[in-house]
Amino acid sequence: MAEKKKTENTTKSDDNVIFVGKKPAMSYVLAVMTQFTAGAKEVQIKARGKSISRAVDVAEIVKNKFLGDVKVKNIEIGTEERTVDGGNKVNVSTLSILLAKG
Amino acid sequence: MAEKKKTENTTKSDDNVIFVGKKPAMSYVLAVMTQFTAGAKEVQIKARGKSISRAVDVAEIVKNKFLGDVKVKNIEIGTEERTVDGGNKVNVSTLSILLAKG
Repeated sequence: MAEKKKTENTTKSDDNVIFVGKKPAMSYVLAVMTQFTAGAKEVQIKARGKSISRAVDVAEIVKNKFLGDVKVKNIEIGTEERTVDGGNKVNVSTLSILLAKG
Repeated sequence: MAEKKKTENTTKSDDNVIFVGKKPAMSYVLAVMTQFTAGAKEVQIKARGKSISRAVDVAEIVKNKFLGDVKVKNIEIGTEERTVDGGNKVNVSTLSILLAKG
């Protein structure tokens, strides 16, 4: 959350966020590709908990296989508190990977 | 043998690497803590595939609960090619988190 709000482009991530969940990685790869094809300069890939490894897969597949001109611009990790059944609070790790074109 | 290894601290990551696998996160948290307690300035946490999410857990637990003066200095993702049973090659994502003290 310590984002540098220097220019509009760097805050554009609100529009271009792909949340990675439990679907196959390729679903999210396609979603990222669609954003870039639609003109996005940056796409942010976010995931929580066990989906984090899949988010890394998605970023790597996009970077290596599809778009040679896409680079990893920033990676952040964090913790979110979630309330589970029964009212217990657990901490869940988060990962955010910012891919940038060009 | 008598060389002065002046920059040893910055290249010390070879010695201070914790590979996160399938054990509970707390095992690796303790391993990281041990490194820092033994005087390490930096500890690198590495993981592959599904263990990546656990590596993020480890980094977050160390950062948030144990050592307020430990910061995430760098995060890198990558891809490794591994040969599985039958000779097929599969790509496995990797994550490397560099924690630094002070």
